[in-house]
Amino acid sequence: MKVICNQKLLSSSINTVQKAVSSKTTMPILKGLLIETYKDGLKLVGTDLEIGIEKYMPAEILDEGSIVLSARLLGEIIRKLPDEDVEIELDHNNHVIIRCANSEFTLLAQPSLEFPELPQVEEDKVYKLPQDLFKNMIKQTVFATAIDETRPILTGVLMEIQDEKINMVALDGYRLALRQGHIKNIDNNKVVIPAKTLNEINRILMEEENTDIDIFFTENHVLFHMNEIRVTSRLLDGEFINYKQIIPNECKSRAKVNTKNLLNSIERASLLAKEGKNNLVKLSVKDECMTITSNAEIGTVYESVSIQLEGEDIDIGFNSKYFLDALKIIDSEEVYLEFTTSVSPCIVKPADHENYTYLILPVRLVG
Amino acid sequence: MKVICNQKLLSSSINTVQKAVSSKTTMPILKGLLIETYKDGLKLVGTDLEIGIEKYMPAEILDEGSIVLSARLLGEIIRKLPDEDVEIELDHNNHVIIRCANSEFTLLAQPSLEFPELPQVEEDKVYKLPQDLFKNMIKQTVFATAIDETRPILTGVLMEIQDEKINMVALDGYRLALRQGHIKNIDNNKVVIPAKTLNEINRILMEEENTDIDIFFTENHVLFHMNEIRVTSRLLDGEFINYKQIIPNECKSRAKVNTKNLLNSIERASLLAKEGKNNLVKLSVKDECMTITSNAEIGTVYESVSIQLEGEDIDIGFNSKYFLDALKIIDSEEVYLEFTTSVSPCIVKPADHENYTYLILPVRLVG
Repeated sequence: MKVICNQKLLSSSINTVQKAVSSKTTMPILKGLLIETYKDGLKLVGTDLEIGIEKYMPAEILDEGSIVLSARLLGEIIRKLPDEDVEIELDHNNHVIIRCANSEFTLLAQPSLEFPELPQVEEDKVYKLPQDLFKNMIKQTVFATAIDETRPILTGVLMEIQDEKINMVALDGYRLALRQGHIKNIDNNKVVIPAKTLNEINRILMEEENTDIDIFFTENHVLFHMNEIRVTSRLLDGEFINYKQIIPNECKSRAKVNTKNLLNSIERASLLAKEGKNNLVKLSVKDECMTITSNAEIGTVYESVSIQLEGEDIDIGFNSKYFLDALKIIDSEEVYLEFTTSVSPCIVKPADHENYTYLILPVRLVG
Repeated sequence: MKVICNQKLLSSSINTVQKAVSSKTTMPILKGLLIETYKDGLKLVGTDLEIGIEKYMPAEILDEGSIVLSARLLGEIIRKLPDEDVEIELDHNNHVIIRCANSEFTLLAQPSLEFPELPQVEEDKVYKLPQDLFKNMIKQTVFATAIDETRPILTGVLMEIQDEKINMVALDGYRLALRQGHIKNIDNNKVVIPAKTLNEINRILMEEENTDIDIFFTENHVLFHMNEIRVTSRLLDGEFINYKQIIPNECKSRAKVNTKNLLNSIERASLLAKEGKNNLVKLSVKDECMTITSNAEIGTVYESVSIQLEGEDIDIGFNSKYFLDALKIIDSEEVYLEFTTSVSPCIVKPADHENYTYLILPVRLVG
């Protein structure tokens, strides 16, 4: 193999695929990055067997071939090179020579035949989603997935497409996030995508231009295709929880409150709450005011926020973290908080549209 | 005590003094921050007994007094408050009540009588230094102090004032940094200031305006006074190494080289050097070219940099870290490298002035 390419472009391409490379793997080949000539350019591939990222970039191909090099070291080297042409050559002794301006690196290549192939996903039936919508749907749900692996299905986000409606749902036993969207002319489907994959997609989407993202499914895998980047991931196996029966349809009181004010007050209250055991903040909803209080050994905090209340007064306690997570990703100026009893879930909704529902289980208050 | 002050100003003042507070101390009172009424404002004090930082700020004093509160918690609370007036009150039950807009915090105060007094440094004989000069002198020397405490005197920077010349010197057994300056009408003196103190001073100087810094000495302590901030620190005890006899007066070869090019080349070479054991890079100085090479199990690197050489060719090896540390803080476009033999120190100097000398011991090359 012998190719010439642009340093900046190569560096940013390595950066993109490197995110799929795990530094902790026990298989040395997975610490590597595959670079192979492909048509009029290069294809870079990184994978940890769960997720694979491929990136295409233009290059001058003098001699076809492929190499595998340590992703970390290659990334560091290319980033430090000057902004000039980079020549990459594989010699007969399995050495890769990287030349750029007055620098020459000679690195021992790993055997590219050992590099795992990514699962094949046929690009026949495409699901097209506007990048903006998909990015937002990920942002508003993925944080609510379970961290611990005791119920693996909960470490992913359910994506359910039915009658041109998309529901994305995440839940971890303490809270649930549901984001709804509408897409015309799209087939029904139901899959659970690992949170890690969606976080990577979100990161890549932030860097890329704002066009549609193309998504393809097989029974066990999903392929995301955006411009020059393809991300392949396994899907999670198993039945997702019937989330619709968890979300209550009615409530006894509904408070409208400024999102930013509520976020700031709960953030301050949580400064003391996190000194205690379970991050507990207490909400007292009464007439035109909601008070937020928290106690710790070192002191107490009392916050008040003005509200518009329909229905009954209520006292209820929450783990402040679960409240803050949601308030941070709701863009609307005002939210509705819906309550039934002090031991039933609270619903948080943006006041200006119906596309987002967040449910939190309360913490039982003592005394 | 009862006072009213500005939230932003209080937050930035806490931030300044908090840097002297150690979170690891076993004495609970040292995790606290002293706030006391002082003339027409407040004095905030933090200390870890080695270094003490005091900051004065205006405030409306309704009732005089003093309190001690957890520096970390207080900093977090004040930072999260809205940009409005903050009222701080100490009640008769030793509770501090902090009120701001719709927030009220009640915190248990620590006994302010237990807070240690900072050492008294009489402000009689002042040493005035331009902040720019002092900042630069710290930056160019403090990184070369010893980290380990086996020879405590080397964890500080020698400040030697003689005949209107100031020398600041740091060394750690592997390299030595000497920065020289000139100040008119200044008395002779010779002290060793802990690196930690100078790092704090440098951080504070970066935030403050560019006027003179006033320095006062006693036998065991130093006081730095800039605008509203006073930093008191102990001095290091003992005799500093006679550094002048370490620096060679002559050399056999002298290479002039572009600082940035050399820095970039050694940085790239060190990517492989750090994969090896001792960060070793080899320099070969010959005619109009210096090559920089490094070997590791995974590969080799070869860099070339153009030079102007006076004197003999030389091959010599270094720990790349010690070279990089110096090249990063030399502002001049070009540097001189002075060599004698492959086992004697190399001197690095800016090409355009005489005020800085950096010495590195070589690593003996095998074979």
